[in-house]
Amino acid sequence: MDYQLLINEVYHEVQSLQLEGKVANYIPELANLDIRKFGISLVTAKGEVYTIGDADEKFSLQSISKAFTLAMVFASEGEALWKRLGVEPSGNPFNSLAQLEYENGIPRNPFINAGALVITDIIRSKTAKPIDDILRFINKLVNSDTIKINQTIAISEIKNSSRNTALAHFMKSFGNINSPIDELIETYCNQCAIEMTCTELAQAFLLFANYGQNRFNGDQLLTRSQTKRINALMQTCGFYDEAGEFAYTVGLPGKSGVGGGIAAILPGEFSVVVWSPGLNPKGNSAKGMKALELLTTKLGHSVF
Amino acid sequence: MDYQLLINEVYHEVQSLQLEGKVANYIPELANLDIRKFGISLVTAKGEVYTIGDADEKFSLQSISKAFTLAMVFASEGEALWKRLGVEPSGNPFNSLAQLEYENGIPRNPFINAGALVITDIIRSKTAKPIDDILRFINKLVNSDTIKINQTIAISEIKNSSRNTALAHFMKSFGNINSPIDELIETYCNQCAIEMTCTELAQAFLLFANYGQNRFNGDQLLTRSQTKRINALMQTCGFYDEAGEFAYTVGLPGKSGVGGGIAAILPGEFSVVVWSPGLNPKGNSAKGMKALELLTTKLGHSVF
Amino acid sequence: MDYQLLINEVYHEVQSLQLEGKVANYIPELANLDIRKFGISLVTAKGEVYTIGDADEKFSLQSISKAFTLAMVFASEGEALWKRLGVEPSGNPFNSLAQLEYENGIPRNPFINAGALVITDIIRSKTAKPIDDILRFINKLVNSDTIKINQTIAISEIKNSSRNTALAHFMKSFGNINSPIDELIETYCNQCAIEMTCTELAQAFLLFANYGQNRFNGDQLLTRSQTKRINALMQTCGFYDEAGEFAYTVGLPGKSGVGGGIAAILPGEFSVVVWSPGLNPKGNSAKGMKALELLTTKLGHSVF
Amino acid sequence: MDYQLLINEVYHEVQSLQLEGKVANYIPELANLDIRKFGISLVTAKGEVYTIGDADEKFSLQSISKAFTLAMVFASEGEALWKRLGVEPSGNPFNSLAQLEYENGIPRNPFINAGALVITDIIRSKTAKPIDDILRFINKLVNSDTIKINQTIAISEIKNSSRNTALAHFMKSFGNINSPIDELIETYCNQCAIEMTCTELAQAFLLFANYGQNRFNGDQLLTRSQTKRINALMQTCGFYDEAGEFAYTVGLPGKSGVGGGIAAILPGEFSVVVWSPGLNPKGNSAKGMKALELLTTKLGHSVF
Repeated sequence: MDYQLLINEVYHEVQSLQLEGKVANYIPELANLDIRKFGISLVTAKGEVYTIGDADEKFSLQSISKAFTLAMVFASEGEALWKRLGVEPSGNPFNSLAQLEYENGIPRNPFINAGALVITDIIRSKTAKPIDDILRFINKLVNSDTIKINQTIAISEIKNSSRNTALAHFMKSFGNINSPIDELIETYCNQCAIEMTCTELAQAFLLFANYGQNRFNGDQLLTRSQTKRINALMQTCGFYDEAGEFAYTVGLPGKSGVGGGIAAILPGEFSVVVWSPGLNPKGNSAKGMKALELLTTKLGHSVF
Repeated sequence: MDYQLLINEVYHEVQSLQLEGKVANYIPELANLDIRKFGISLVTAKGEVYTIGDADEKFSLQSISKAFTLAMVFASEGEALWKRLGVEPSGNPFNSLAQLEYENGIPRNPFINAGALVITDIIRSKTAKPIDDILRFINKLVNSDTIKINQTIAISEIKNSSRNTALAHFMKSFGNINSPIDELIETYCNQCAIEMTCTELAQAFLLFANYGQNRFNGDQLLTRSQTKRINALMQTCGFYDEAGEFAYTVGLPGKSGVGGGIAAILPGEFSVVVWSPGLNPKGNSAKGMKALELLTTKLGHSVF
Repeated sequence: MDYQLLINEVYHEVQSLQLEGKVANYIPELANLDIRKFGISLVTAKGEVYTIGDADEKFSLQSISKAFTLAMVFASEGEALWKRLGVEPSGNPFNSLAQLEYENGIPRNPFINAGALVITDIIRSKTAKPIDDILRFINKLVNSDTIKINQTIAISEIKNSSRNTALAHFMKSFGNINSPIDELIETYCNQCAIEMTCTELAQAFLLFANYGQNRFNGDQLLTRSQTKRINALMQTCGFYDEAGEFAYTVGLPGKSGVGGGIAAILPGEFSVVVWSPGLNPKGNSAKGMKALELLTTKLGHSVF
Repeated sequence: MDYQLLINEVYHEVQSLQLEGKVANYIPELANLDIRKFGISLVTAKGEVYTIGDADEKFSLQSISKAFTLAMVFASEGEALWKRLGVEPSGNPFNSLAQLEYENGIPRNPFINAGALVITDIIRSKTAKPIDDILRFINKLVNSDTIKINQTIAISEIKNSSRNTALAHFMKSFGNINSPIDELIETYCNQCAIEMTCTELAQAFLLFANYGQNRFNGDQLLTRSQTKRINALMQTCGFYDEAGEFAYTVGLPGKSGVGGGIAAILPGEFSVVVWSPGLNPKGNSAKGMKALELLTTKLGHSVF
């Protein structure tokens, strides 16, 4: 397979479709993103890198960061983790309090905001400098020390965190959050504001394509079984109430963020990251969704 | 891979766990099933058959029949199908009316009962003898003409169909059902009462492992892309509110039925059917769930 | 208090407001009603009758009939009735299945459709000719034998009863309906199609203003306590998800129907019926709601 | 009517029933209340006072304070108030976030916690010392200056306010709260911790029985129409998801608190307060509910 040819075709075909979407508007820094930006990076299991477009521009991970924090916590906690959250798709938008209420403060899965807050709460209980630990984990995955937080975005997120603050207080009322809420929200907003390029993110996501191994140093961070489980969770829950649509049209495990990034993997084969800030009504990158659909269709290959 | 050895190991390990579950109690014929029954059949993409236990006893498909009716309708209707139902997990039990109300009579996906009723309604609109067509479709998949309906079960299901009748009338009030309700329910209960053995069902499920092709006569019943999509739907929606759990622990697309059967596939590799009538609290075969979890764990291989 | 002057003022003030609303559109016979019709009848506890406008035209009771069937059943069953339904406002539209599902087939109160179907199911269990019994009960309240069913409306309702049929099958699945569903729906649609004039209905509603006594023959049909309870239920549940609004603006116990009628009472003082077929978005007569608000405001008197 | 005889009978009959209930357990200060305490005060519209039992012991108002803050805000804002909250019963427990989510941050009514927080937010926007204003309002109603906050309870409530803090942040995310959340919660917890005796509270509640007039100084604090409206709201929404039950069995507008108090009124006739800390499963005083049911039954008189 000529992956460069493949992503070139995908890139140009998507560009011709004039899918725009809308930038996220809940914080000013995301609202100012240039909607024309569009990049793709594909990295094979062996480490070959293919890129096109704005693949070397930094963007904030937002919810994609949840995949990394889940990996950190799952590696340390194992199955005991699931006492505090579930593994089922929610069928509801990403920040639903209603479901949390019916289910007594136990979030449905680690990729809705409530579940990600629980994961971050666990990280906080293990370390005095949680955000440093998260950055160290990600930097190791890309064999670098340059992955950082965009402070402007982080501050803006903290200022606009009413909904997540509500979620955290609500879970605390059920005894499912231990951190002081303002500190938890600060860590969480910082993790969402971590910036990477398409290529860096694809490098980091190889963890999930390579059965849990860090390609650079050979460390087995997750067992093969744990990696399968995180991939299954991304497949069923990684796209909020569009998870079924993504599985249906793309057929790869993946995770999206409102910064416009989508990272996906084909186990044993490659990781791929698409970035374009225009979002569809469900909050996933419009060009990103289309690009990944075309990619698996042209490839004739997905997990299914 | 020695598949016979694999399923032998799985079989004996599950038997040692004394998982019983409870038989479905909503109709007497299911309540009378012998809870000790347990069989496994695995059929490779090339047609090699491996079995252990009660793999040659007939059991009723129940909701597993939804995979076949979806395949029939998807082949004929294509994407137009999705005007009348969705592709998202429901996050709710299999016969929820609540969600249907919030969503104006459009079922979430083809594997909840409401969605399956819409699928059967479409089959009925195309033919005068819907149940004959369904049986013909399935018989061709197993190169046989012996697959039949268990009339006792069918009649019992019709007598106990209040919930499905409610769903059908409710969707009719939104204009999403065209058949006379009593006739629709009759067809639907008949389809659920189709009986197959583990081996027959695994043969038939090869359709989904073989990228849409009937192994016996070479007919391409579904395109590769359509097969991917049905597999994705089984992965995200095939186990009601335990779909995430099944993806998480097993990692294969599959479909379960309250008759105690579970059918699953690994694309390009094999289909596998487990049958044991004792159900867990979510309505899926207790031994079946465990057997498939062990199978992919021992195999070190799943779609993820 | 000069009641004639009062209702004259109310009538003309409402007419000047050009409130139209929309006629109910779920059956053709209601959709054809003349939206300009508007009548008021007020009958004092002593039997003095005051009318204005189209107070002598027949209209179908629709949900107002639920007050009479509840009175019949409560008189015979007493508190045992509440094993099969509740006394709480639903906070949801009148035919919600969602709530019924969360609450295991026990309707919230006797004035949502599900609850009224249970009431009619109880009547059916006591008599071979349920609709005759209902008509006899109402005719006695107005000292007449002329109250009848509008057959055209009844037939049309039966043809358009998918939602209520769904509700009935759904409750049957929980064991809370005993009648054959089609017969239950027929009785229910017939009861909804009973026709009365404003004056006749106000005469009949005196039952609730007169502490349970039939003014014409002195029969004590309900105890004082039972009458209080039905009035309380009308106050809290008589207007679906506009019950709070009606209590807030009008302050009288009452019951509305999609035929455009509203009947209300001031205990010990009077009953009042307003009829105008134009409905507000919540399904209650637009002119009727306004008329009753003006009536209690001008009167300076309500139950509160 | 000999009111002293009436409340004596009620008191002794309730005592004989051995209704205990459970004290509220969400803060230690409420959990320590003596479950055997039981007092009743009835004050007529003319100011005659009748008491029995522990009618002169202080208890914290808790949610009963919502009636006073609503009166304050309704007097100043009038109907404009209803832009920020509704007048419909919720049909859900008192601190439901689910409903708030479906309804975009607009609380159903002023007596669920979310609605009361909006009311307190409005008070805060008008004054630098909101809790002083609330105390002044209540003290005037009882012609006193001794009504105060129980500081121990207030502090304990602030420490255990996760759920209310979640509600406030959640509404803020919809733009329906303006105060800094921690200050709002402090005011709200202080208002809940105001202490009164049965007699003091009954004196203060005369406001609602006397059509909006302060009996002591003759001030018309609310118009007759406004008073009707608050009474209607108490009737339909004053007892959370037991509002229908209270209307059904008691038939008076009233408000309960988890401190064990219930205040109710019969317009033009009297106010009545019952206090006993043992709560039923819905969070309303078990003895209080029974006492008021007996009171209206023996009296043969309610608003209905």
